[in-house]
Amino acid sequence: MSSADNQQGRLNEKLTPDYIIGLVDGEGYFSVSAYVDKSQGWNSHNVKMVFGVDLNIIDGRLLYNLRDYFGCGSVRLKKDKRERFSDQLQFQIRDMKSLTEIIIPFFQKYQLKLPKKKRSFEKFMEIAKMKSAKEHIGEKGFLKAQYLARQMHTFSPLRDYTPTATLKVDDDIVHAI
Amino acid sequence: MSSADNQQGRLNEKLTPDYIIGLVDGEGYFSVSAYVDKSQGWNSHNVKMVFGVDLNIIDGRLLYNLRDYFGCGSVRLKKDKRERFSDQLQFQIRDMKSLTEIIIPFFQKYQLKLPKKKRSFEKFMEIAKMKSAKEHIGEKGFLKAQYLARQMHTFSPLRDYTPTATLKVDDDIVHAI
Repeated sequence: MSSADNQQGRLNEKLTPDYIIGLVDGEGYFSVSAYVDKSQGWNSHNVKMVFGVDLNIIDGRLLYNLRDYFGCGSVRLKKDKRERFSDQLQFQIRDMKSLTEIIIPFFQKYQLKLPKKKRSFEKFMEIAKMKSAKEHIGEKGFLKAQYLARQMHTFSPLRDYTPTATLKVDDDIVHAI
Repeated sequence: MSSADNQQGRLNEKLTPDYIIGLVDGEGYFSVSAYVDKSQGWNSHNVKMVFGVDLNIIDGRLLYNLRDYFGCGSVRLKKDKRERFSDQLQFQIRDMKSLTEIIIPFFQKYQLKLPKKKRSFEKFMEIAKMKSAKEHIGEKGFLKAQYLARQMHTFSPLRDYTPTATLKVDDDIVHAI
Protein backbone atom coordinates (compact mmCIF):
# COMPACT_ATOMS: atom_id res chain seq x y z
CA MET A 1 0.00 0.00 0.00
CA SER A 2 1.51 3.34 -1.04
CA SER A 3 1.63 6.32 1.25
CA ALA A 4 -1.02 7.99 -0.88
CA ASP A 5 -3.28 5.06 -0.02
CA ASN A 6 -2.82 5.68 3.64
CA GLN A 7 -3.62 9.33 3.41
CA GLN A 8 -6.50 9.25 1.02
CA GLY A 9 -9.83 7.53 1.25
CA ARG A 10 -12.36 6.79 -1.38
CA LEU A 11 -15.17 9.21 -1.96
CA ASN A 12 -18.60 8.02 -1.03
CA GLU A 13 -19.68 7.95 -4.67
CA LYS A 14 -20.90 5.19 -6.91
CA LEU A 15 -19.49 5.27 -10.41
CA THR A 16 -21.48 4.31 -13.48
CA PRO A 17 -20.11 3.61 -16.98
CA ASP A 18 -21.70 6.80 -18.35
CA TYR A 19 -20.10 8.90 -15.64
CA ILE A 20 -16.70 7.32 -16.32
CA ILE A 21 -17.07 8.00 -20.05
CA GLY A 22 -17.87 11.65 -19.34
CA LEU A 23 -14.94 12.02 -16.97
CA VAL A 24 -12.48 10.24 -19.28
CA ASP A 25 -13.70 12.27 -22.28
CA GLY A 26 -12.59 15.32 -20.33
CA GLU A 27 -9.73 14.20 -18.10
CA GLY A 28 -8.52 10.82 -19.28
CA TYR A 29 -5.70 9.97 -21.67
CA PHE A 30 -4.42 7.09 -23.75
CA SER A 31 -0.71 7.34 -24.34
CA VAL A 32 1.87 5.32 -26.25
CA SER A 33 5.62 5.73 -26.42
CA ALA A 34 7.35 3.74 -29.14
CA TYR A 35 11.12 4.04 -28.91
CA VAL A 36 14.31 2.14 -29.64
CA ASP A 37 16.29 1.12 -26.57
CA LYS A 38 19.99 0.70 -27.36
CA SER A 39 21.18 0.31 -23.79
CA GLN A 40 21.71 -3.45 -24.13
CA GLY A 41 24.04 -3.11 -27.10
CA TRP A 42 21.39 -3.94 -29.65
CA ASN A 43 18.22 -2.26 -30.89
CA SER A 44 15.26 -3.23 -28.79
CA HIS A 45 11.83 -2.00 -29.88
CA ASN A 46 9.83 -0.73 -26.95
CA VAL A 47 6.17 0.12 -27.10
CA LYS A 48 4.82 1.32 -23.77
CA MET A 49 1.16 1.94 -23.30
CA VAL A 50 -0.76 3.69 -20.59
CA PHE A 51 -4.33 4.65 -19.82
CA GLY A 52 -4.70 7.25 -17.09
CA VAL A 53 -6.65 9.98 -15.37
CA ASP A 54 -4.95 12.74 -13.36
CA LEU A 55 -6.85 14.96 -10.94
CA ASN A 56 -5.81 17.56 -8.38
CA ILE A 57 -5.22 16.08 -4.97
CA ILE A 58 -8.59 17.10 -3.51
CA ASP A 59 -10.66 15.66 -6.33
CA GLY A 60 -8.23 12.81 -6.80
CA ARG A 61 -9.83 10.70 -4.11
CA LEU A 62 -12.29 9.69 -6.81
CA LEU A 63 -9.45 7.85 -8.53
CA TYR A 64 -9.52 5.22 -5.79
CA ASN A 65 -13.17 4.64 -6.68
CA LEU A 66 -12.09 4.33 -10.30
CA ARG A 67 -9.38 1.83 -9.41
CA ASP A 68 -11.93 -0.18 -7.44
CA TYR A 69 -14.33 -0.05 -10.38
CA PHE A 70 -11.80 -1.44 -12.85
CA GLY A 71 -10.08 -3.67 -10.29
CA CYS A 72 -6.65 -2.82 -11.68
CA GLY A 73 -4.12 -0.02 -11.97
CA SER A 74 -2.56 2.14 -9.30
CA VAL A 75 -2.94 5.59 -7.84
CA ARG A 76 0.15 7.60 -7.03
CA LEU A 77 0.96 11.07 -5.81
CA LYS A 78 2.47 13.38 -8.40
CA LYS A 79 4.13 16.36 -6.74
CA ASP A 80 3.99 19.70 -8.49
CA LYS A 81 6.63 22.10 -7.25
CA ARG A 82 5.35 25.04 -9.25
CA GLU A 83 3.89 27.96 -7.37
CA ARG A 84 0.07 28.00 -7.56
CA PHE A 85 -0.12 24.46 -8.93
CA SER A 86 -1.44 21.83 -6.58
CA ASP A 87 -0.20 18.28 -6.35
CA GLN A 88 -2.07 15.67 -8.32
CA LEU A 89 -3.13 12.12 -7.92
CA GLN A 90 -2.57 9.96 -10.94
CA PHE A 91 -4.47 6.79 -11.74
CA GLN A 92 -2.69 4.73 -14.37
CA ILE A 93 -2.90 1.29 -15.90
CA ARG A 94 0.20 0.14 -17.75
CA ASP A 95 0.18 -3.64 -17.78
CA MET A 96 -0.94 -5.17 -21.06
CA LYS A 97 -3.10 -7.80 -19.43
CA SER A 98 -5.30 -5.22 -17.68
CA LEU A 99 -5.30 -2.95 -20.72
CA THR A 100 -6.40 -5.65 -23.14
CA GLU A 101 -8.72 -7.58 -20.85
CA ILE A 102 -10.36 -4.77 -18.88
CA ILE A 103 -9.77 -1.27 -20.22
CA ILE A 104 -10.11 -1.79 -23.96
CA PRO A 105 -13.26 -3.93 -23.67
CA PHE A 106 -14.79 -1.29 -21.36
CA PHE A 107 -14.24 1.53 -23.85
CA GLN A 108 -15.42 -0.67 -26.69
CA LYS A 109 -18.66 -1.32 -24.88
CA TYR A 110 -19.24 2.20 -23.54
CA GLN A 111 -18.02 4.46 -26.28
CA LEU A 112 -16.24 7.75 -25.73
CA LYS A 113 -18.10 10.66 -27.29
CA LEU A 114 -15.50 13.35 -27.95
CA PRO A 115 -13.94 12.87 -31.42
CA LYS A 116 -10.33 13.47 -30.38
CA LYS A 117 -10.46 11.12 -27.41
CA LYS A 118 -12.35 8.52 -29.42
CA ARG A 119 -9.74 8.60 -32.17
CA SER A 120 -6.94 8.39 -29.65
CA PHE A 121 -8.56 5.29 -28.15
CA GLU A 122 -9.01 3.67 -31.58
CA LYS A 123 -5.30 4.05 -32.39
CA PHE A 124 -4.44 2.84 -28.89
CA MET A 125 -6.52 -0.27 -29.51
CA GLU A 126 -4.76 -0.92 -32.84
CA ILE A 127 -1.36 -0.64 -31.21
CA ALA A 128 -2.39 -2.95 -28.37
CA LYS A 129 -3.49 -5.55 -30.92
CA MET A 130 -0.15 -5.28 -32.75
CA LYS A 131 1.74 -5.51 -29.49
CA SER A 132 -0.17 -8.59 -28.36
CA ALA A 133 0.70 -10.22 -31.70
CA LYS A 134 4.33 -9.14 -31.16
CA GLU A 135 4.28 -7.34 -34.48
CA HIS A 136 6.21 -4.41 -33.01
CA ILE A 137 9.33 -6.55 -32.64
CA GLY A 138 10.04 -6.42 -36.39
CA GLU A 139 11.14 -3.19 -38.05
CA LYS A 140 8.03 -2.80 -40.16
CA GLY A 141 5.64 -3.39 -37.28
CA PHE A 142 7.59 -1.04 -35.04
CA LEU A 143 7.42 1.78 -37.60
CA LYS A 144 3.70 1.19 -37.92
CA ALA A 145 3.30 1.39 -34.15
CA GLN A 146 5.22 4.67 -34.17
CA TYR A 147 3.02 5.97 -36.96
CA LEU A 148 -0.16 5.03 -35.10
CA ALA A 149 1.16 6.57 -31.87
CA ARG A 150 1.74 9.80 -33.78
CA GLN A 151 -1.80 9.69 -35.11
CA MET A 152 -3.20 9.44 -31.59
CA HIS A 153 -1.95 12.93 -31.06
CA THR A 154 -3.02 14.50 -34.32
CA PHE A 155 -6.33 14.90 -36.00
CA SER A 156 -7.06 14.90 -39.71
CA PRO A 157 -9.60 17.36 -40.96
CA LEU A 158 -12.66 15.37 -41.93
CA ARG A 159 -15.12 16.81 -44.32
CA ASP A 160 -17.83 17.34 -41.75
CA TYR A 161 -15.64 19.30 -39.36
CA THR A 162 -15.39 23.03 -39.42
CA PRO A 163 -12.88 24.40 -41.89
CA THR A 164 -11.83 26.99 -39.33
CA ALA A 165 -10.30 24.38 -37.04
CA THR A 166 -6.57 24.82 -36.80
CA LEU A 167 -5.16 21.35 -36.85
CA LYS A 168 -1.76 21.06 -35.28
CA VAL A 169 0.55 18.26 -36.28
CA ASP A 170 3.59 17.41 -34.19
CA ASP A 171 5.45 15.04 -36.38
CA ASP A 172 8.34 14.73 -34.02
CA ILE A 173 6.26 13.65 -31.09
CA VAL A 174 5.75 9.97 -30.73
CA HIS A 175 4.88 9.96 -27.07
CA ALA A 176 1.28 10.98 -27.47
CA ILE A 177 -0.98 12.02 -24.64
CA MET B 1 -28.11 31.45 -35.90
CA SER B 2 -24.43 32.19 -35.29
CA SER B 3 -21.72 31.41 -37.80
CA ALA B 4 -20.49 28.64 -35.53
CA ASP B 5 -23.93 27.08 -35.88
CA ASN B 6 -23.64 27.06 -39.61
CA GLN B 7 -20.24 25.44 -39.61
CA GLN B 8 -20.72 22.90 -36.90
CA GLY B 9 -23.21 20.11 -36.60
CA ARG B 10 -24.20 18.09 -33.64
CA LEU B 11 -22.42 14.84 -32.93
CA ASN B 12 -24.47 11.73 -33.36
CA GLU B 13 -24.38 11.05 -29.64
CA LYS B 14 -27.08 10.72 -27.04
CA LEU B 15 -26.29 12.37 -23.73
CA THR B 16 -27.32 10.95 -20.39
CA PRO B 17 -27.30 12.75 -17.02
CA ASP B 18 -24.43 10.56 -15.76
CA TYR B 19 -22.33 11.37 -18.81
CA ILE B 20 -23.00 15.09 -18.37
CA ILE B 21 -22.02 14.90 -14.70
CA GLY B 22 -18.75 13.19 -15.64
CA LEU B 23 -17.98 15.74 -18.33
CA VAL B 24 -18.89 18.73 -16.17
CA ASP B 25 -16.87 17.34 -13.25
CA GLY B 26 -13.89 17.51 -15.57
CA GLU B 27 -14.56 20.35 -17.99
CA GLY B 28 -17.43 22.45 -16.66
CA TYR B 29 -17.34 25.58 -14.52
CA PHE B 30 -19.59 27.68 -12.37
CA SER B 31 -18.46 31.25 -12.22
CA VAL B 32 -19.60 34.40 -10.44
CA SER B 33 -18.32 37.95 -10.72
CA ALA B 34 -19.55 40.33 -8.06
CA TYR B 35 -18.44 43.90 -8.69
CA VAL B 36 -19.46 47.49 -8.18
CA ASP B 37 -20.34 49.38 -11.34
CA LYS B 38 -19.81 53.14 -10.93
CA SER B 39 -20.32 54.07 -14.57
CA GLN B 40 -23.80 55.49 -13.97
CA GLY B 41 -22.63 57.92 -11.32
CA TRP B 42 -23.75 55.77 -8.41
CA ASN B 43 -22.71 52.43 -6.98
CA SER B 44 -24.54 49.60 -8.64
CA HIS B 45 -24.00 46.09 -7.29
CA ASN B 46 -23.55 43.60 -10.09
CA VAL B 47 -23.55 39.87 -9.60
CA LYS B 48 -23.07 38.00 -12.86
CA MET B 49 -23.35 34.25 -12.98
CA VAL B 50 -22.39 31.74 -15.60
CA PHE B 51 -22.36 27.99 -16.05
CA GLY B 52 -20.26 26.79 -18.94
CA VAL B 53 -18.25 24.10 -20.66
CA ASP B 54 -15.42 24.90 -23.09
CA LEU B 55 -13.97 22.32 -25.48
CA ASN B 56 -11.51 22.49 -28.35
CA ILE B 57 -13.18 23.10 -31.67
CA ILE B 58 -13.13 19.48 -32.82
CA ASP B 59 -14.67 18.07 -29.66
CA GLY B 60 -16.82 21.14 -29.23
CA ARG B 61 -19.54 19.86 -31.53
CA LEU B 62 -20.77 17.96 -28.49
CA LEU B 63 -21.71 21.30 -26.95
CA TYR B 64 -24.58 21.60 -29.42
CA ASN B 65 -25.88 18.31 -28.08
CA LEU B 66 -25.51 19.72 -24.58
CA ARG B 67 -27.42 22.87 -25.56
CA ASP B 68 -30.17 20.70 -27.04
CA TYR B 69 -30.25 18.62 -23.87
CA PHE B 70 -30.76 21.62 -21.58
CA GLY B 71 -32.80 23.58 -24.10
CA CYS B 72 -31.05 26.82 -23.21
CA GLY B 73 -27.73 28.64 -23.44
CA SER B 74 -25.58 29.40 -26.44
CA VAL B 75 -22.49 28.06 -28.15
CA ARG B 76 -19.94 30.50 -29.48
CA LEU B 77 -16.54 30.35 -31.09
CA LYS B 78 -13.65 31.49 -28.91
CA LYS B 79 -10.58 32.24 -30.99
CA ASP B 80 -7.19 31.47 -29.55
CA LYS B 81 -4.42 33.36 -31.28
CA ARG B 82 -1.63 31.59 -29.43
CA GLU B 83 0.65 29.31 -31.39
CA ARG B 84 -0.16 25.64 -30.78
CA PHE B 85 -3.46 26.41 -29.09
CA SER B 86 -6.57 25.55 -31.01
CA ASP B 87 -9.76 27.57 -31.06
CA GLN B 88 -12.48 26.56 -28.66
CA LEU B 89 -16.21 26.33 -28.64
CA GLN B 90 -17.84 27.65 -25.52
CA PHE B 91 -21.25 26.65 -24.22
CA GLN B 92 -22.52 29.09 -21.64
CA ILE B 93 -25.73 29.85 -19.80
CA ARG B 94 -25.93 33.28 -18.22
CA ASP B 95 -29.59 34.16 -17.85
CA MET B 96 -30.96 33.73 -14.34
CA LYS B 97 -34.18 32.10 -15.48
CA SER B 98 -32.37 29.23 -17.19
CA LEU B 99 -29.84 28.95 -14.38
CA THR B 100 -32.44 28.75 -11.63
CA GLU B 101 -35.09 26.75 -13.46
CA ILE B 102 -32.98 24.32 -15.47
CA ILE B 103 -29.30 24.19 -14.53
CA ILE B 104 -29.46 24.31 -10.74
CA PRO B 105 -32.29 21.73 -10.50
CA PHE B 106 -30.33 19.43 -12.83
CA PHE B 107 -27.20 19.52 -10.68
CA GLN B 108 -29.28 19.15 -7.54
CA LYS B 109 -30.85 15.99 -8.92
CA TYR B 110 -27.72 14.49 -10.50
CA GLN B 111 -24.95 15.36 -8.11
CA LEU B 112 -21.44 16.26 -9.15
CA LYS B 113 -18.88 13.90 -7.66
CA LEU B 114 -15.61 15.85 -7.53
CA PRO B 115 -15.33 17.75 -4.23
CA LYS B 116 -14.03 21.02 -5.70
CA LYS B 117 -16.68 21.20 -8.42
CA LYS B 118 -19.39 20.17 -6.00
CA ARG B 119 -18.41 22.90 -3.58
CA SER B 120 -18.26 25.44 -6.36
CA PHE B 121 -21.79 24.49 -7.39
CA GLU B 122 -23.08 24.74 -3.81
CA LYS B 123 -21.78 28.29 -3.44
CA PHE B 124 -23.15 29.12 -6.90
CA MET B 125 -26.55 27.91 -5.78
CA GLU B 126 -26.42 30.05 -2.62
CA ILE B 127 -25.55 33.14 -4.64
CA ALA B 128 -28.34 32.43 -7.13
CA LYS B 129 -30.81 32.22 -4.26
CA MET B 130 -29.60 35.54 -2.85
CA LYS B 131 -29.75 37.14 -6.26
CA SER B 132 -33.28 35.93 -6.90
CA ALA B 133 -34.30 37.44 -3.55
CA LYS B 134 -32.48 40.65 -4.59
CA GLU B 135 -30.37 40.46 -1.43
CA HIS B 136 -27.26 41.49 -3.37
CA ILE B 137 -28.66 45.00 -3.90
CA GLY B 138 -27.96 45.98 -0.29
CA GLU B 139 -24.39 46.43 0.96
CA LYS B 140 -24.51 43.49 3.37
CA GLY B 141 -25.94 41.08 0.81
CA PHE B 142 -23.45 42.21 -1.80
CA LEU B 143 -20.50 41.60 0.50
CA LYS B 144 -21.87 38.18 1.29
CA ALA B 145 -22.19 37.39 -2.41
CA GLN B 146 -18.58 38.48 -2.90
CA TYR B 147 -17.52 36.28 -0.01
CA LEU B 148 -19.36 33.28 -1.41
CA ALA B 149 -17.92 33.90 -4.89
CA ARG B 150 -14.46 33.87 -3.36
CA GLN B 151 -15.22 30.60 -1.64
CA MET B 152 -16.17 29.00 -4.94
CA HIS B 153 -12.58 29.34 -5.92
CA THR B 154 -10.91 28.23 -2.73
CA PHE B 155 -11.12 25.08 -0.73
CA SER B 156 -10.93 24.75 3.02
CA PRO B 157 -9.10 21.76 4.37
CA LEU B 158 -11.72 19.48 5.79
CA ARG B 159 -10.77 16.94 8.33
CA ASP B 160 -11.16 13.97 6.03
CA TYR B 161 -8.95 15.36 3.29
CA THR B 162 -5.29 14.65 3.04
CA PRO B 163 -3.11 16.91 5.15
CA THR B 164 -0.60 17.02 2.29
CA ALA B 165 -2.95 18.95 0.03
CA THR B 166 -1.60 22.41 -0.69
CA LEU B 167 -4.60 24.65 -0.53
CA LYS B 168 -4.22 27.86 -2.45
CA VAL B 169 -6.26 30.89 -1.49
CA ASP B 170 -6.62 33.82 -3.84
CA ASP B 171 -8.20 36.44 -1.68
CA ASP B 172 -8.13 39.07 -4.34
CA ILE B 173 -10.00 37.04 -6.91
CA VAL B 174 -13.71 37.41 -6.88
CA HIS B 175 -14.33 36.22 -10.38
CA ALA B 176 -14.10 32.54 -9.69
CA ILE B 177 -13.97 29.88 -12.34
